Amino acid sequence: MLTNDQLAKWDRENFFHPSTNLGQFARGEGAQRIVTGGSGVHITDRDGNRLLDGFAGLYCVNVGYGRTEISEAIAKQAHELAYYHAYAGHGSEASITLSKMVMDRAPKNMARVYFGLGGSDANETNIKLIWYYNNILGRPEKKKIISRWRGYHGSGLMTGSLTGLELFHKKFDLPLAQVIHTEAPYYFRRPDLNMSEAQFTAHCVAELEALIEREGADTIAAFIGEPVLGTGGIVPPPEGYWPAIQKVLDKHDILLVVDEVVTGFGRLGSMFGSDHYGVKPDLITSAKGLTSAYAPLSASIVGQRMWDVLCQGTDEYGVLGHGWTYSAHPIGAAAGIANLELIDKLGLVENAASTGAYLVNTMREALGDHPNVGEVRGEGMLCAVELVAERDGREFFDASEGKGAKVVAAMLERGVIARAMPQGDILGFAPPLCLTTEEADKIVSVTKDAVAAVLG
Amino acid sequence: MLTNDQLAKWDRENFFHPSTNLGQFARGEGAQRIVTGGSGVHITDRDGNRLLDGFAGLYCVNVGYGRTEISEAIAKQAHELAYYHAYAGHGSEASITLSKMVMDRAPKNMARVYFGLGGSDANETNIKLIWYYNNILGRPEKKKIISRWRGYHGSGLMTGSLTGLELFHKKFDLPLAQVIHTEAPYYFRRPDLNMSEAQFTAHCVAELEALIEREGADTIAAFIGEPVLGTGGIVPPPEGYWPAIQKVLDKHDILLVVDEVVTGFGRLGSMFGSDHYGVKPDLITSAKGLTSAYAPLSASIVGQRMWDVLCQGTDEYGVLGHGWTYSAHPIGAAAGIANLELIDKLGLVENAASTGAYLVNTMREALGDHPNVGEVRGEGMLCAVELVAERDGREFFDASEGKGAKVVAAMLERGVIARAMPQGDILGFAPPLCLTTEEADKIVSVTKDAVAAVLG
Repeated sequence: MLTNDQLAKWDRENFFHPSTNLGQFARGEGAQRIVTGGSGVHITDRDGNRLLDGFAGLYCVNVGYGRTEISEAIAKQAHELAYYHAYAGHGSEASITLSKMVMDRAPKNMARVYFGLGGSDANETNIKLIWYYNNILGRPEKKKIISRWRGYHGSGLMTGSLTGLELFHKKFDLPLAQVIHTEAPYYFRRPDLNMSEAQFTAHCVAELEALIEREGADTIAAFIGEPVLGTGGIVPPPEGYWPAIQKVLDKHDILLVVDEVVTGFGRLGSMFGSDHYGVKPDLITSAKGLTSAYAPLSASIVGQRMWDVLCQGTDEYGVLGHGWTYSAHPIGAAAGIANLELIDKLGLVENAASTGAYLVNTMREALGDHPNVGEVRGEGMLCAVELVAERDGREFFDASEGKGAKVVAAMLERGVIARAMPQGDILGFAPPLCLTTEEADKIVSVTKDAVAAVLG
Repeated sequence: MLTNDQLAKWDRENFFHPSTNLGQFARGEGAQRIVTGGSGVHITDRDGNRLLDGFAGLYCVNVGYGRTEISEAIAKQAHELAYYHAYAGHGSEASITLSKMVMDRAPKNMARVYFGLGGSDANETNIKLIWYYNNILGRPEKKKIISRWRGYHGSGLMTGSLTGLELFHKKFDLPLAQVIHTEAPYYFRRPDLNMSEAQFTAHCVAELEALIEREGADTIAAFIGEPVLGTGGIVPPPEGYWPAIQKVLDKHDILLVVDEVVTGFGRLGSMFGSDHYGVKPDLITSAKGLTSAYAPLSASIVGQRMWDVLCQGTDEYGVLGHGWTYSAHPIGAAAGIANLELIDKLGLVENAASTGAYLVNTMREALGDHPNVGEVRGEGMLCAVELVAERDGREFFDASEGKGAKVVAAMLERGVIARAMPQGDILGFAPPLCLTTEEADKIVSVTKDAVAAVLG
C-alpha cells in the first residue's frame, strides 16, 4: 500500500482527470478523493470516509457496489479468455449469450445488438449507421440529426454536438453543423407559466414541426432523445410528450434514437424507457445499466427496419467498415450477463419503481414547501430538486452563486453524495436500484439539512 | 455449457458483429468462430481448433494469451472496487498508479495522461483538446487536421475521417470537412519507381508543404500519423521521414499527434515509436498495448506545451467539459499495471526487437524471391508481405480477385492466423511480443505453403 501522500502527489503530477478544473487540481487546490471500495449503496475512501452514493457513480452502479456475483464472473472470464475480437463473425460464449439476453429484454421491434464500450461510442455508432442507412436508401441529403437542448448524448465531437449543454460546447467549436437542437421538454422551465402540461407538450411538438419545416424533412435523418432528460436536469417528459413526438417523426420518415444510457435495464422501474413511455425506437443507446459499470460495455440496439437496410447495404457493398478493437469485449460481456441476472434475481426493476417513488415522495414532503425549492420531480429511481431564488415568480439564482454546488458540498460533509447538475441549480439523485427506504430517508434528511444550512 | 449449435444460432440471430458482412452472417453464409481460450501465442475455439495467432487479436494481445498475472490483477480489482468514476478529481489507487507508470515510460516532453476506453475515443479526445487549445490561444481559424492516406486512427465519425482508407469512408459521408489527407509514406507504392527512399521522403515532405500552402498554415491545427502505418498496410516510414515532417510542422506551428495505438509499449522494439523515430509529439494516442487488451483502456498522453494551455483554459473558463463515464476504469487500470510490469519482467520490448527482426528476415529469405511477392517489410514485431501480379513492373492484382484474403484463408486452414489488410493484397503479421523463433518459423513456413497453394 502506498501512503496517501505519495499517491495524491502522483495523482496531481500525472493524471488528467475528466470534467475537472485542470490547473486547480494540479496545484492541489481542487477536490481530490481516492476511492478504495464499496458495498451496497456506500463507497469508502482512503481517508476513512464512508459515503452513501446517491448518484451510483455516474448513475451507473445500478446493482450497487461490491457484488461478488459480478466480480466473480469477471474473474472467471479473465482466466478463461480475457480477450478476443468480434470482427468478421468472431465471438465468445459470453458476448453471444449477452446478445441473446439483451434482445430478450429489448422492445419487440428490435433486431440486433452491437456492443461497444461506453454511451458516447454507442451514439457514434448510431449516427454512422443512420447515415449509412440513408445512403443505402438513396437519400444522400437526409442526414441532419435533431437533438434537444439539455439532452446528454456523450462527450465526443459528434456526440457532444448531440448533447445540448453549454459546458460541452463552449471552446470546443460544437455543435457540428450536422446537428440541430429543438426545445427541451422541461415543463418547469416552460416559456409561459400559464401553460398546462398538455399545452406545453403541444408547444414542444409545434417547435419540432416548425424546425422540420424550416430545414426540410428530406434533410433530416433522425431525432435523438432520452426518455427522461438526464444530465440536462433529470426531467421526466410532460404529459403525452413521447407519443406526440413519435407521430411527427413517423409522418416525416425520421428515425427515432432513444438514448437509454441512463434509463436502460431498470432505472425507471421498467426494463426500458421506450416501453415505459410507449415509443418504438429505431435505435436504442445503452451502456451504464448494462454492466452496472463493473466493466465498460455499451450497446446499440438496432430496430428491424434499419437492420434490413444494413443487410441490404453489406450485400451490395461488402463488409461494414465499422468496429472498435474492444467491441463486445469478453470481460464486459461476462459482467453484463452477471449483472442482468442479478437485476432479475434481486427484483431491482420493481424496487426502482417502488423505492424510487418513495424517495421522490419523501423528498417532496420534506422539501416541497421550502421557499427556495421550485420543484421536486422524478421517475423511477431518478429524483431532482430544483432550487430557485424566488419560488412564486420562478426566479432562478445567478449561476455565479453556485447554490446547487454549495448544497451538494454540504451534503457531502454529511456523508451523502448527490450531483450538482451542470446547468441550473439542480440537485440530482440516481442511487443504486437496490436502495432501501431507510437509505432513502437518509438521503432526504441530509438533503433537507444541507438545504437549510446553505439557504436557510 | 451450451451446445455449439444453440450458441451459433443465438449469434446469428442477435449479435451485430463489427467489420462483418451482416446479411451473409445472419443467413449462416459467413465465417463464424467462437473463441474459448488462449495460451501464449495460441487461441482455441469451440470446434477444438488450436490456432497460432499471428496478429495478436487485432495487434493488441502483446503479452500473449492466458497471463495469470493480469487476470489475477483484474480479479483482485473487481473484488476490491470494480468501478468509481474519475470526474472532478476522483481516482482509484490503480488508475493513479498507472498514470505514474505511463508517464515514467512516455517520451520526456509529455506532461499528463487522460485515460479512455479504446484508440478511437482517445483520438476523439485528442481532436477536442486540439480545438480547445487553439481557442484558448485565440486562434479560432486554426482547426483543420492533416492526416495521411492509409493512416488508421479509428472508426468513429471524426476518427474514421482521420483514417485514410476507403472502407471506413464509403457510404458513411466521411471524411468530415475538417480533415484533409496528404500522401502516404509508402515507399513500395511510390509514384515513380526510380525514386530513392530519400527522394521519396523529399516528395512526401513537398506534398505536405504544398498542402499547407494551399490551405494556409493559419487554418491547420495538427498533423496525425502512426510511426509505422498499420491497417493501411504495415509500412515503416522511408528514410528520414519523421524528422523531416517534424521540421515542417514546427515551422508552421502545427501540433503533432503520434498515434501509437499499435506501436506504444513495445511493438517496435522500443517503448514508444516516437522515441524510436526521434520525434517529439504534442499528443500520443495509446490503447492496445497499454493493457494487452485484457481490459479496455486507452490513453491520450498530453505534451507540456498543450498541458500548459489546457490549464490556462480551465483557469479562465472552469471545468473542462470532457469525460467518459468509464474514463480510467479501475479494471482497465489494474490490467494496465500488471501488463506493463509483465512487459518489463519478460523483456518483451527487447524480444519484439530481436524476434521481430528474426521473423522479418526469415520471411524475406523464404518468400522474397517468389514472383508474386513484391516486398517483405517490417519493424520490430510487425511484418507484411505484399503480393503483386507482376514483380518487376510492380503490377498489382485486381482487388476483386481477393488474393490476399485467399492466402490468409489458406494459412488459417494450416493453423496460423494472419490478417488480410483491407486495402491491397497485403498479408499482415503482428504476433504477441512473446513470440519465439520456433513460432516465427512456423508462421513463415505456413505463409510459404499458403502462398504456394494460392499463387503457385
